[in-house]
Amino acid sequence: MSQFDPGLPSVKQVQSYIQEKREVEIKLSTDDLLVGRILWQDVNCLYLVDHYDKPTLIWQQSLVYLKPKA
Amino acid sequence: MSQFDPGLPSVKQVQSYIQEKREVEIKLSTDDLLVGRILWQDVNCLYLVDHYDKPTLIWQQSLVYLKPKA
Amino acid sequence: MSQFDPGLPSVKQVQSYIQEKREVEIKLSTDDLLVGRILWQDVNCLYLVDHYDKPTLIWQQSLVYLKPKA
Amino acid sequence: MSQFDPGLPSVKQVQSYIQEKREVEIKLSTDDLLVGRILWQDVNCLYLVDHYDKPTLIWQQSLVYLKPKA
Amino acid sequence: MSQFDPGLPSVKQVQSYIQEKREVEIKLSTDDLLVGRILWQDVNCLYLVDHYDKPTLIWQQSLVYLKPKA
Amino acid sequence: MSQFDPGLPSVKQVQSYIQEKREVEIKLSTDDLLVGRILWQDVNCLYLVDHYDKPTLIWQQSLVYLKPKA
Repeated sequence: MSQFDPGLPSVKQVQSYIQEKREVEIKLSTDDLLVGRILWQDVNCLYLVDHYDKPTLIWQQSLVYLKPKA
Repeated sequence: MSQFDPGLPSVKQVQSYIQEKREVEIKLSTDDLLVGRILWQDVNCLYLVDHYDKPTLIWQQSLVYLKPKA
Repeated sequence: MSQFDPGLPSVKQVQSYIQEKREVEIKLSTDDLLVGRILWQDVNCLYLVDHYDKPTLIWQQSLVYLKPKA
Repeated sequence: MSQFDPGLPSVKQVQSYIQEKREVEIKLSTDDLLVGRILWQDVNCLYLVDHYDKPTLIWQQSLVYLKPKA
Repeated sequence: MSQFDPGLPSVKQVQSYIQEKREVEIKLSTDDLLVGRILWQDVNCLYLVDHYDKPTLIWQQSLVYLKPKA
Repeated sequence: MSQFDPGLPSVKQVQSYIQEKREVEIKLSTDDLLVGRILWQDVNCLYLVDHYDKPTLIWQQSLVYLKPKA
């Protein structure tokens, strides 16, 4: 995320998934596909927890795309 | 997208696909090829919806090329 | 293209291919090799058209090398 | 790590793993998965030591995700 | 090349290969290995010519390493 | 190396390997693993020589991790 301005649609979109505790699917630059809920985001990272509440700190620089699960 | 100046040809080009509700094909750094319509763009992301109106938030940093479908 | 200064040799070189309507071969970070004529360039993208005048918007960040065809 | 502000949640999160001498698993852009304890972090690198206290200097630019081991 | 300051050792090193018309081997992020002589460099690109004087414009962002040939 | 401040731990760490003429193993974004001694570093590159004193100019942007050899 080159810019972390809370007013940006992209930042708001991720924030809405956080507030809705939405499950999401995140594709990373290594082709990894991580599934879970985002707890918080900042300019460097997303903090994701999986079904077992196990956390993963994901670097923004590796984000390719994000899809909310149905 | 290192710069998001609405006056740039590249930003205008994507904006025209948005306004025309054009279907596009987007190649990402992971070799993924996503197809759909772009609803909005900002400095960090493109927001794409597919045939079933399912959304995908795509990070600008992962964009390789974009082709409008016929 | 970290900098888009029209005075730079690299920007001039691409501009010369544009003016000469030169066919070029472009290698991208996904190993894709695209062939066509560049219509315009800006800080974010190159706009390429192929034999059938079909356009491709290529992100500068994915450019690896460019060779003019014979 | 585009920004190294100690006040950021992401920097604090890594700092907590350092203070807790937590074992972590780090996925890198080359798909390497390194395991060990982080001794320090700065804007450019993380310094990791493995079971045998052998050090690895990891560049921030190659970080994809980090998981604390159970 | 994040910075193109002619006083930097790295820029001087490439400049010396240019002046010596040295043949070099250049590894790119796509694993391509290009061989030839560098004619010029700027903040965005290196301009390489091969045995047949055929030019290749190489983006700095894709450079991994460079070795002078014996 | 987004920042080349000699006061940073990461820059000092590499500088110590240089002064100690330490043999190191360097993993690059193309999965190449280069072994040798670093002669100098700057904001753009590391300059490595192998057993035969053959030099390789490595771009900082391609660095993944570095391990001192035993």
